[in-house]
Amino acid sequence: MSHGDVPSEEARRALERTAREIADYLSRLENQPVFPEVRPGAVAAALPQEPPPEPEALDRILDDFLRIIEPNLNHWNHPGFMAYFAISGSVPGILGEALAAAVNVNAMKWQTSPAATELEERTCDWLRQMVGLPEVFRGHINDTASTGTLLALSAARYRACDDIRNQGAASGPPVTVYCSEQAHSSVDKAAMVLGFGLDYTRHVPTDADFRMLPEALEGAIQADRDAGKVPIAVVATLGTTSTTSVDPVAAIAEVCARYKLWLHVDAAYAGSAAICEELRHLFDGWAKADSIVINPHKWMFTPVDCSVLFVRDLSEWRGAFALVPEYLRSTDEAELDLMDLGFQLGRRFRSLKLWMVIRAFGVQGLAERIREHCRIAGRLAEWIDDSPWFERMAPTPFSTVCFRAVSPDLEDDRLDDLNEQLLARINRHGTVFVSHTRLNGELVLRAAVGNIKTGSEHVAELWRLAQSEAELLRAKG
Amino acid sequence: MSHGDVPSEEARRALERTAREIADYLSRLENQPVFPEVRPGAVAAALPQEPPPEPEALDRILDDFLRIIEPNLNHWNHPGFMAYFAISGSVPGILGEALAAAVNVNAMKWQTSPAATELEERTCDWLRQMVGLPEVFRGHINDTASTGTLLALSAARYRACDDIRNQGAASGPPVTVYCSEQAHSSVDKAAMVLGFGLDYTRHVPTDADFRMLPEALEGAIQADRDAGKVPIAVVATLGTTSTTSVDPVAAIAEVCARYKLWLHVDAAYAGSAAICEELRHLFDGWAKADSIVINPHKWMFTPVDCSVLFVRDLSEWRGAFALVPEYLRSTDEAELDLMDLGFQLGRRFRSLKLWMVIRAFGVQGLAERIREHCRIAGRLAEWIDDSPWFERMAPTPFSTVCFRAVSPDLEDDRLDDLNEQLLARINRHGTVFVSHTRLNGELVLRAAVGNIKTGSEHVAELWRLAQSEAELLRAKG
Repeated sequence: MSHGDVPSEEARRALERTAREIADYLSRLENQPVFPEVRPGAVAAALPQEPPPEPEALDRILDDFLRIIEPNLNHWNHPGFMAYFAISGSVPGILGEALAAAVNVNAMKWQTSPAATELEERTCDWLRQMVGLPEVFRGHINDTASTGTLLALSAARYRACDDIRNQGAASGPPVTVYCSEQAHSSVDKAAMVLGFGLDYTRHVPTDADFRMLPEALEGAIQADRDAGKVPIAVVATLGTTSTTSVDPVAAIAEVCARYKLWLHVDAAYAGSAAICEELRHLFDGWAKADSIVINPHKWMFTPVDCSVLFVRDLSEWRGAFALVPEYLRSTDEAELDLMDLGFQLGRRFRSLKLWMVIRAFGVQGLAERIREHCRIAGRLAEWIDDSPWFERMAPTPFSTVCFRAVSPDLEDDRLDDLNEQLLARINRHGTVFVSHTRLNGELVLRAAVGNIKTGSEHVAELWRLAQSEAELLRAKG
Repeated sequence: MSHGDVPSEEARRALERTAREIADYLSRLENQPVFPEVRPGAVAAALPQEPPPEPEALDRILDDFLRIIEPNLNHWNHPGFMAYFAISGSVPGILGEALAAAVNVNAMKWQTSPAATELEERTCDWLRQMVGLPEVFRGHINDTASTGTLLALSAARYRACDDIRNQGAASGPPVTVYCSEQAHSSVDKAAMVLGFGLDYTRHVPTDADFRMLPEALEGAIQADRDAGKVPIAVVATLGTTSTTSVDPVAAIAEVCARYKLWLHVDAAYAGSAAICEELRHLFDGWAKADSIVINPHKWMFTPVDCSVLFVRDLSEWRGAFALVPEYLRSTDEAELDLMDLGFQLGRRFRSLKLWMVIRAFGVQGLAERIREHCRIAGRLAEWIDDSPWFERMAPTPFSTVCFRAVSPDLEDDRLDDLNEQLLARINRHGTVFVSHTRLNGELVLRAAVGNIKTGSEHVAELWRLAQSEAELLRAKG
């Protein structure tokens, strides 16, 4: 039996075929349903229960990808995808991922991949300049914002508690963490995993526009201090997941300074919008943060995963996470080793795709695309506001619109039913795909414009479907 | 200014060019130095300090990749790469990554990507069968074994401590974790980040072959219990990072059962070798574990990142990590949602590359390649054993050889100098690349055979260089 990789001629043919398949996929995608009807278990049933004992030709595997896998995906890369936060595997990003897999370097240390380490630092610094953050912030790339938030809260505990690295948390008093009631579930998850406990995560009330109330924050901190708890960190969100509301970071930063708390800013989705000068005011005060997370894999057209974490005091941060075993020690410790910035040792070459995306579109091109997304989401918001049959359920500071159908004949408690059915009916067409959330207990439809190929025609299609389907539902009673 | 992705004709040409560049890279790689001489800061200096305001052509970006990035990488995919654990971005894996970036799905929930969720479950089950684990184990894919180990220790605390999810760790007694003194640094890092504290991680002594001593483990557990600590978990390693030593898992499992401790098995590197029937005996007892981590991105020719975590009791595991916010709630909760198995919400479509790798090589093909790696590493071990000028510093159960040059004329304390110089001189040739570790305080060279293209000729080249360079160094005195 032969060893080594796939024979080079077969490899070359398969690489070229894959390139064509990707180009074809991206071209034809719009004419396919965003979310095909998939029966649970259907894919599993089409896959052999046992692994293949013998090698199979790459062409056959690619055929099966097209036959079994692709038709049963929810097409996040479809221009009609407006659910969750819409994301994009844009072409420069796809090239970057393919090249990263080919060179397959692990940039845990500078020495193990000089170019990958230095490109990550430089590319993150480009992003820092693009969003207008001061030079003090140093960026590095994690897989997800969940990881960034977990690391930030861990670093906050490191700062607040004496010798936590060695002594652990068991000996100390309970530490408390603050975020708004609209914050992402990753704050709670981090509190669970890190051993803070959900009971010590405070979900601070928000105003009518779903923004954290700084007075309520301060009250909660004060109450915890009075009760012998140790407040350590506040997570402020710029662009919450449900409504993309904007916490008043400047006021929150003042509270943090007063009580000496770590300020982590979750700008996973909306951070990219700071590239647009005219939106920069929404980010007032974020430069005061200790750490900020922005996900280029959300609204900067970079394939998942690529989450940039900016840290103010990198030397303190390394103190929280660095631990170098002998087999990774090198003579020259002058260079930054990225493995010292978190708990994961291995790291993919994620900066390559980000570098290619920034260059391929340029800063102005990225700003233009984000601006256009905000513009067309704003039109949808206007249509909703002008209609007696719909109402907008939250402000639209960026490109995500929360709305629901209303009906003068219906009791309030029947509106949830109406909108749940409406959601299913809109999505069933396959031309657009939206998701939902709950605001003040009410079911709300949520259209997030973020895919690089989403244009005004897709938002118009959503509005057309929403109107006609709601009308049918109302007629049915 | 136009919006959308790169125009489709330019995109298609760039995809096809990238496919050719990857094929070319893989073909010419062997004739390039494994680790080019790179001056710190050289890459950064070649990159503009400011991001490009205007879009740039994909061809120009690809040219710059070839000009600035590629020549300054440490080529992990080179067949002469035998440092750390040698890994492979094999062709089927590269295709899988490219396709995953193109479809760009986020399989956080079954609904958000049915095919990706079901393929992940099926592919992990294939791996389970391949390595001979019982059906009770359910696998899912994380980025790294560091994450898998952190999750396992967090789940162990969840099991051991009352209501840790809500109450946190501060109120409880210190929890202790056990691993051998040869265990991976990720155990310590997890203990730091989770708030266990490094002082409560016990590094159990090992025997002369670097294997954890079960009696010493039991003694440490007993001592901690007597001192009012709460032992919660043992991390046993099958294939430690320094020497690939094999902890006696069967005996350790008995200790864990006796004291009701979570047993996590770190088989990140060596787990793939369980595909080979004749090596299966080294894994005796691992089926008793609560969790096992195996990295296909290490020795199964899958590009980073792809780390499979097998969990015995998935329902308990979900209890430790699941937390579903409203905007991710769906009507049908019957299907497994992968986001419930950890703290990271977003997840790449990592199973695609693993599926393609397993199919392209087949189970027998994978076993043959791993077997061949062990065979050629075994030959290197024999050459070393037969030479009066070298000595082997650890057993070679798999494909990693620890050795050093000796010299009858040299005092023991000069041998470290000799071997440090030898390491640098071997690597300077650029044909092979090895790393080092320290065993019993002594500097040891470490050759890890794991890249899919590494053959007997590369190991012979290493041996030729080691002999000639050591001879030159000895002559210099």
